[in-house]
Amino acid sequence: MKRILLLSIIVAIMTPIVSAQRGMFAPAAPSPSIARDGSVKFTVKAPGADTVRLIIDSRLDTLMQRQGNGEWSMTLRGLKPDLYMYYYRIDGVKVLDDENAQVANDVKNVMNKFILDPSGDCPMAVHDVPHGDVSAVWYDSPSLGMKRRMMVYTPAGYGESRQRYPVLYLLHGSGGDETVWTELGRAAQILDNLIASGNAQPMIVVMPNGNVDEPAVAGSGPDNNVQPTFAHKNWMEGTFEQSFNDIMTWVDTHYRTRDAKRYRAIAGLSMGGYHSLYISANQPDDFGYVGLFSPAISRMDKGKSKIYDDIEKKLVNQFKQRPKVYWMGIGKDDFLYKDNAEFRKTLDKHRLSYTYHESTRGHEWTNWREYLVIFAQLLFK
Amino acid sequence: MKRILLLSIIVAIMTPIVSAQRGMFAPAAPSPSIARDGSVKFTVKAPGADTVRLIIDSRLDTLMQRQGNGEWSMTLRGLKPDLYMYYYRIDGVKVLDDENAQVANDVKNVMNKFILDPSGDCPMAVHDVPHGDVSAVWYDSPSLGMKRRMMVYTPAGYGESRQRYPVLYLLHGSGGDETVWTELGRAAQILDNLIASGNAQPMIVVMPNGNVDEPAVAGSGPDNNVQPTFAHKNWMEGTFEQSFNDIMTWVDTHYRTRDAKRYRAIAGLSMGGYHSLYISANQPDDFGYVGLFSPAISRMDKGKSKIYDDIEKKLVNQFKQRPKVYWMGIGKDDFLYKDNAEFRKTLDKHRLSYTYHESTRGHEWTNWREYLVIFAQLLFK
Repeated sequence: MKRILLLSIIVAIMTPIVSAQRGMFAPAAPSPSIARDGSVKFTVKAPGADTVRLIIDSRLDTLMQRQGNGEWSMTLRGLKPDLYMYYYRIDGVKVLDDENAQVANDVKNVMNKFILDPSGDCPMAVHDVPHGDVSAVWYDSPSLGMKRRMMVYTPAGYGESRQRYPVLYLLHGSGGDETVWTELGRAAQILDNLIASGNAQPMIVVMPNGNVDEPAVAGSGPDNNVQPTFAHKNWMEGTFEQSFNDIMTWVDTHYRTRDAKRYRAIAGLSMGGYHSLYISANQPDDFGYVGLFSPAISRMDKGKSKIYDDIEKKLVNQFKQRPKVYWMGIGKDDFLYKDNAEFRKTLDKHRLSYTYHESTRGHEWTNWREYLVIFAQLLFK
Repeated sequence: MKRILLLSIIVAIMTPIVSAQRGMFAPAAPSPSIARDGSVKFTVKAPGADTVRLIIDSRLDTLMQRQGNGEWSMTLRGLKPDLYMYYYRIDGVKVLDDENAQVANDVKNVMNKFILDPSGDCPMAVHDVPHGDVSAVWYDSPSLGMKRRMMVYTPAGYGESRQRYPVLYLLHGSGGDETVWTELGRAAQILDNLIASGNAQPMIVVMPNGNVDEPAVAGSGPDNNVQPTFAHKNWMEGTFEQSFNDIMTWVDTHYRTRDAKRYRAIAGLSMGGYHSLYISANQPDDFGYVGLFSPAISRMDKGKSKIYDDIEKKLVNQFKQRPKVYWMGIGKDDFLYKDNAEFRKTLDKHRLSYTYHESTRGHEWTNWREYLVIFAQLLFK
């Protein structure tokens, strides 16, 4: 009875049906509008607004220009081909582009996205090449006592072949989860394109969830409505690194992998770079290729886990049978730049040989996508 | 040089870095706030606004109440456990909930979403049960001359077993694509829960893209920035139905299926119900189970394809070796109600026996999720 009464109240406050179907029959034109020369025009309708700003990639925050017709617009030129994220701020209120249904979530920020690929060769774009499959799979992690979700990319042709494939383990950063390397990192498109052009070997890419307190990305785990967060319980204290063999064992039993050091790579961004550094140093016989993308070196207290003890000794030992590629990339403006420079000094002191790539920009996805493009081409050759 | 100049202009209009990182370290509390009794409290900060409205499921449009602290709030009670989508309208402008990173796109409407599961038994929620995997795979469609993307659910245990499984082909409606049955239809969670409780048989669920002019959902196909649209080229004119064998052949060669009529089901919503009706009538030996969820019967011109010719004769023939379940569901308020009643008259005229389920509400996801819950329990028994 109480329930019926409450339902009645809801019905009472209902107003006539809202048409949320705006644009349903509209032509499927891209928004924003991208010209052949690569210029990108943003347009938003806000007749009564005092100010409308465009925020793109969380870095460029620019005032849009009022047009005569109640619209505001802004054209950007010279952007490099890549994935971009943006939103508007109308009189201070964050507003998404209602003409663009493509959105992505970066930590807890929902933004619109688009691909800029004016010359048709951006490695982050979908091209007319054979596509690999991407699966959300649940694996057993006995050491964490739970089933956990991860994404697995299998290259085009995997399903039809009897071949065995090398594996790249690709780890996310703080605030990320098992979905970010495909959603924001464009891992599937990058691998599809590099493999199709012969610039990368066909490989399996395994993208686990590095937050050991959650079985899956916020919303796909048992706590249905939990929100993404930057810092987790059991955060960078060794548990993930110690449980990593669960992932490798599961992958080697469920996929046709080549189970040997020279066919196994590990790479990660930020926290995932930190994970990659320590996992590979603690398991010197497992990874022939190591990629540290803006790694969060020295960000956390040491001494929390034996995983982090004696790292110099472990690195020296690891390099006795040196990984074929030990690759580091960082942007000049990255807040982790100094820590990375210190780490390089440590490697240099012991004459451990590595590849160093310094880019512009800071701690951001445009760098990590670029690093994956470079690193993937070095693997398994 | 020109490029450098243009880049300089961009840099010149740059303002100091925006902190898009708001809430990154905030506790991962759900938004909206859901109490144990199932009441749902929405809160939005908009100190300067004149009106703030909450629009939920595109049906309930209600004025929120101004609080003393610049916040507006609204508490809803008596909602049934389900997935909900909502957004705000602040002085007329559509605004997403900045505290909720979970969003979904329905046709071209991006909204926030949450799961309401106060008693922990909503079949649309993630529960602590074994989870099946969901893969985005690219299959070959020789009759359409392209590789196309579809989603495939394999039940928990599939990877470890040698067993063969029955298959449900689950089709989307107009404006949908291969992702909507998992994103909005909660097909994976519904099947996980029903299989775990013993109420449904373990089965493979294949969710193809029914828009034959696109290889994949807007943004995952070669036209990277194309927007979703309601009506497509080659829309409900027989091409999809005629190409359906490509999907079945691919699935039967790539998965451990039970390749026989009594182990094969087809169901779909709206346009997908129309597809299911005609595919099963034209292939009477293939489907032991047929589900028409608010099917878009008689919405399109007939005579466009031999697929649509002589449907009464085909149905009579199909029912000579009657599908074990021929199931129809529709809401009392559905704009297709009358067309469906006409279709039932046709079935009755020929004494073709079917199961009819009439629900409240209209042409909407809450019905289609409910129909899947009912239909999945009838299959392969």
